[in-house]
Amino acid sequence: MKVGRVIGTVNSTVKDAYLVGLKLLLTDILDGTGNVIEKSVLAADTCGAGVGDMVIISQGSAARIPAKTNASPVDASIVAVIDKVSLGQLKAK
Amino acid sequence: MKVGRVIGTVNSTVKDAYLVGLKLLLTDILDGTGNVIEKSVLAADTCGAGVGDMVIISQGSAARIPAKTNASPVDASIVAVIDKVSLGQLKAK
Amino acid sequence: MKVGRVIGTVNSTVKDAYLVGLKLLLTDILDGTGNVIEKSVLAADTCGAGVGDMVIISQGSAARIPAKTNASPVDASIVAVIDKVSLGQLKAK
Amino acid sequence: MKVGRVIGTVNSTVKDAYLVGLKLLLTDILDGTGNVIEKSVLAADTCGAGVGDMVIISQGSAARIPAKTNASPVDASIVAVIDKVSLGQLKAK
Amino acid sequence: MKVGRVIGTVNSTVKDAYLVGLKLLLTDILDGTGNVIEKSVLAADTCGAGVGDMVIISQGSAARIPAKTNASPVDASIVAVIDKVSLGQLKAK
Repeated sequence: MKVGRVIGTVNSTVKDAYLVGLKLLLTDILDGTGNVIEKSVLAADTCGAGVGDMVIISQGSAARIPAKTNASPVDASIVAVIDKVSLGQLKAK
Repeated sequence: MKVGRVIGTVNSTVKDAYLVGLKLLLTDILDGTGNVIEKSVLAADTCGAGVGDMVIISQGSAARIPAKTNASPVDASIVAVIDKVSLGQLKAK
Repeated sequence: MKVGRVIGTVNSTVKDAYLVGLKLLLTDILDGTGNVIEKSVLAADTCGAGVGDMVIISQGSAARIPAKTNASPVDASIVAVIDKVSLGQLKAK
Repeated sequence: MKVGRVIGTVNSTVKDAYLVGLKLLLTDILDGTGNVIEKSVLAADTCGAGVGDMVIISQGSAARIPAKTNASPVDASIVAVIDKVSLGQLKAK
Repeated sequence: MKVGRVIGTVNSTVKDAYLVGLKLLLTDILDGTGNVIEKSVLAADTCGAGVGDMVIISQGSAARIPAKTNASPVDASIVAVIDKVSLGQLKAK
């Protein structure tokens, strides 16, 4: 999965029947300190996420495991809203 | 998914039997402000898209969920024509 | 899918039993104007393609949809030989 | 698969029901000599890994083969903790 | 698929039960002339490959088609040892 930040929405009238009713959110992929490392992944929302939220994005066939996206032609879904990213101390080896 | 812009078409005589009748469109992948971030993804059209349209592209096994591409050897499909990309205000945290 | 150019062949004696009889072609991935944008994708030929041909390459599970590659451990196949790439005029919006 | 180093954890309250109980670890992908080659892949732990551990990460549908992640919307899992990476002498040809 | 060169091995004690008995080899991905184009893909060996061998690597679900890796959480496998890469003359068009 990837850590993402929701930055916008996308609207379509002409679309696959199984996209009707899905909210599609534009996200930037972040590293652990909040820097953008990949731009503009469009993900189906399954969690009630909104613009500004930090989220977990699953890609590939994983994106269609949530009930909301099960039959839809989506390759990326928001599967969680992140409360906190904790960068740990590397433990001594 | 990704936001794309249709930039052209590709024609083939010698091809897999399950590509016959599919329209294959060359697209550039865009970020939310319209900059090209990846070039020349070839996607099967399932929506009646044409050159110049901004579209949603699904990749991987998701590309074969629409009825039109269900049995075809495609790894990318146009699943929607975009009306509008709205970049939101980041909400206060 | 991607547009590719066949640049060579690869031969192996020690290989998976389900690769026996498949022709494996080395390809460069191109943009719409013929520039190389990714090097050296090795794809199973399902169309009778040869060195110098411009081809369509499908990747991932799509590569195993053609009958020739159905049971083979391949993640990329040539599914068409391209006659022509047409870059369209962007239509007025 | 990729070699990774666990660098942190991610916590979420609002999430897919099948993520409940999974530990999600933020990892950096490394080359054989320990340099970071890709940042911030979020992987489900199936091995009891912790921050600082060098691990093997499987991505795509492979991430859902372990029993712990079988029904979860994950596209990356930690499937082993690495004891040692040995860079071999290239053998004479 | 990709052309790779085996550069080392990885050992793990704590691992998924279905990785037990599999040899995991660290590989660099090469272009047709032997330059490294991607570093440190970790692949399950299904062919008896060793350090220094030039090999074919299949990724994604293709990696689990060989009998040896069928039930394992692997996303990359060595499916052939390469005898020879032949870069062809581009034929006249």
